[in-house]
Amino acid sequence: MVTFARGFKASGVACGLKKNGRKDLAVVISDSPCVCAGVYTTNIVKGHSLQLTMERMETSPYVNAVVVNSGCANACVGQRGYDDAQLITEYLAQKLNVDKETVLIGSTGVIGVPLNVELIRKGIDKAFDELSYIGGHDAMEAIMTTDTVPKLYEKETVIGGKTVRIGGMAKGSGMIHPNMATMISIITTDANISKKMLDKALSNVVNKTFNRVSVDGDTSVCDMCLVMASQMAGNECIEEDGSEYILFEQALYEVCLNLAKAIAKDGEGATKLVEIEVVNAKSKEDADLITSAIAKSPLCKTAFFGEDANWGRIITAAGYSKAYFEPNRIDIYIGGLAVCKNGVALEFDEDIAIGILKQDEFKILVDLNLGSEKSIMWTCDFSYDYVKINGSYRS
Amino acid sequence: MVTFARGFKASGVACGLKKNGRKDLAVVISDSPCVCAGVYTTNIVKGHSLQLTMERMETSPYVNAVVVNSGCANACVGQRGYDDAQLITEYLAQKLNVDKETVLIGSTGVIGVPLNVELIRKGIDKAFDELSYIGGHDAMEAIMTTDTVPKLYEKETVIGGKTVRIGGMAKGSGMIHPNMATMISIITTDANISKKMLDKALSNVVNKTFNRVSVDGDTSVCDMCLVMASQMAGNECIEEDGSEYILFEQALYEVCLNLAKAIAKDGEGATKLVEIEVVNAKSKEDADLITSAIAKSPLCKTAFFGEDANWGRIITAAGYSKAYFEPNRIDIYIGGLAVCKNGVALEFDEDIAIGILKQDEFKILVDLNLGSEKSIMWTCDFSYDYVKINGSYRS
Repeated sequence: MVTFARGFKASGVACGLKKNGRKDLAVVISDSPCVCAGVYTTNIVKGHSLQLTMERMETSPYVNAVVVNSGCANACVGQRGYDDAQLITEYLAQKLNVDKETVLIGSTGVIGVPLNVELIRKGIDKAFDELSYIGGHDAMEAIMTTDTVPKLYEKETVIGGKTVRIGGMAKGSGMIHPNMATMISIITTDANISKKMLDKALSNVVNKTFNRVSVDGDTSVCDMCLVMASQMAGNECIEEDGSEYILFEQALYEVCLNLAKAIAKDGEGATKLVEIEVVNAKSKEDADLITSAIAKSPLCKTAFFGEDANWGRIITAAGYSKAYFEPNRIDIYIGGLAVCKNGVALEFDEDIAIGILKQDEFKILVDLNLGSEKSIMWTCDFSYDYVKINGSYRS
Repeated sequence: MVTFARGFKASGVACGLKKNGRKDLAVVISDSPCVCAGVYTTNIVKGHSLQLTMERMETSPYVNAVVVNSGCANACVGQRGYDDAQLITEYLAQKLNVDKETVLIGSTGVIGVPLNVELIRKGIDKAFDELSYIGGHDAMEAIMTTDTVPKLYEKETVIGGKTVRIGGMAKGSGMIHPNMATMISIITTDANISKKMLDKALSNVVNKTFNRVSVDGDTSVCDMCLVMASQMAGNECIEEDGSEYILFEQALYEVCLNLAKAIAKDGEGATKLVEIEVVNAKSKEDADLITSAIAKSPLCKTAFFGEDANWGRIITAAGYSKAYFEPNRIDIYIGGLAVCKNGVALEFDEDIAIGILKQDEFKILVDLNLGSEKSIMWTCDFSYDYVKINGSYRS
């Protein structure tokens, strides 16, 4: 969680944005100024809180705190939304006695409804009183929307003889699709690393983790992943490529991968985590197009839910993905069971297939037998509950 | 229906491909050789029946008959699938005493299962015996898969002083998305028109009708739209552009539009037909990208089902569509009710919104206020039943 690394306090409180009285305001603060890296939604509509955070990340070399609310996206409400984000970060900055430019903000929830700044100010007072070095779990609870489980991961590694910790939290279960759909992840580390190398590590890792997760193909307007580094581990500053950088990137990868998979597994209404891998493609782009088409296909996803080994929908999705492949060379496996060879149906034992599909997690492997490029993605099934949750989310 | 135009007989019978004993084999024959135009799925995986039809359409100047089976896609079964399509068309050609090259075939249903040619031969015998000038409805029933209603349309117009008839049928409810997803439409006309102008008319019309319908964004491997012209109306042959061609294209447009909208409205599990229109885009491509993103978005479609005026999902879909627009100029209307102006939430009466969303058909209008291009598309909502139907289709 975000209080695993040294130098970070957090808390999470209920300030009244969520109608059901659950926690809806998280604060993560650092004991000392942090270097920080961020990646953001590619949606051209951007929430006002995210706009402010992106501006500050451009100009401020250090970050001291992040405040995240759930229950309201603070998006599409005009200038007021931007002003509200300013007011909220200013208020927290005053309490912490830091420059407001070093305070970031994230918001997630319904679009088109203004934030209630008064409630949030009171919430910040409360969150400030409750800040602690073990508050990471409360902060996690406070950023959940339709999430059913908290998503936390912690990793300890040794870099240059020093113990380095990385811990993170993530929310987001619907609307998750590359790139960076309704997903907010805050990761903290005590590694001593330059801003430049932290940016590089996050960018590399996000492309292999959060951006390889799809729940429903929709990408939202508010989403971001931030990594704050407190530099308290005492390792010599990682300022360039090399074994120490690699160790750090690997550890960050492990954290992000586990958070990303937790998001896919907790997709709205999801009952299964499905790994989609395409191998031996002619180009990386072809492989990516196919994993993405399968991961997004409502027909594939309802078949996963129905535990139906309907690989015809998989080859169909590959076929319309716009990727190049030769239909008479494609092989398809469901959890290791070969169901299609050279584009032709194989006879297989339906009971074995059902046994595989009944598992919580399984893998779809598509072998194009053309080249050497591959792609992997994680998705979930599409259930009755997906429709139920999303048919009545706003009301 | 396909027996509305003069010179066409049809029938539809149950030959045993569908486990539930329903009709599954349709035959449409012309009294005289027809010119014929076709458009086909863009999926790079193509069913074997479709492959054969596409080949014959390339080489044969005339067509005498089409046979369509439901219950089995005849796709991804290898050489055998192609051979089976040959055998079936040969058998029908012999019965009709015509060249097999003038007999086309379509198949729809489950992928990866071979056709039972013996059953189909017996079915052809039966269908042959039942051929009639009023058999269009039986033929329609025989091509249905998850369709809940037959989709038929008829249009009469006067060209060059002669009455010209166009009638068609279409199947397809899931897996419908541009271009030409699991959709089979057979249209017949008694117009006297050249192959070249028939090709042109169909191509123009399909782009404005069948290719503007989305149910779930998946495009299938078997789909086609064929138009057969018996030339029996007695009008002077339409061989070039001009008022007579325009009249024909307009009539064909009306037939295809109504069949396409019927498909969207009968989308698997659908309870509503939703028209998505984007206006005042800078380019046609931008407008198309946005209508398509909204029409495909599971989050928009579940909100339509839930009768939730959640326009945040509409602006979100526009935002990730890759279209160019200015978020602070976009206006959104639900059934005429303004919900977002210049990218900012408007206060609106929820009761009025719910009243609109409770209708069987309503319209979403997105005004980009940038240029003068527009795009329109028809889609349906995403319901529990979509998941139910597709979670257990193959089993």
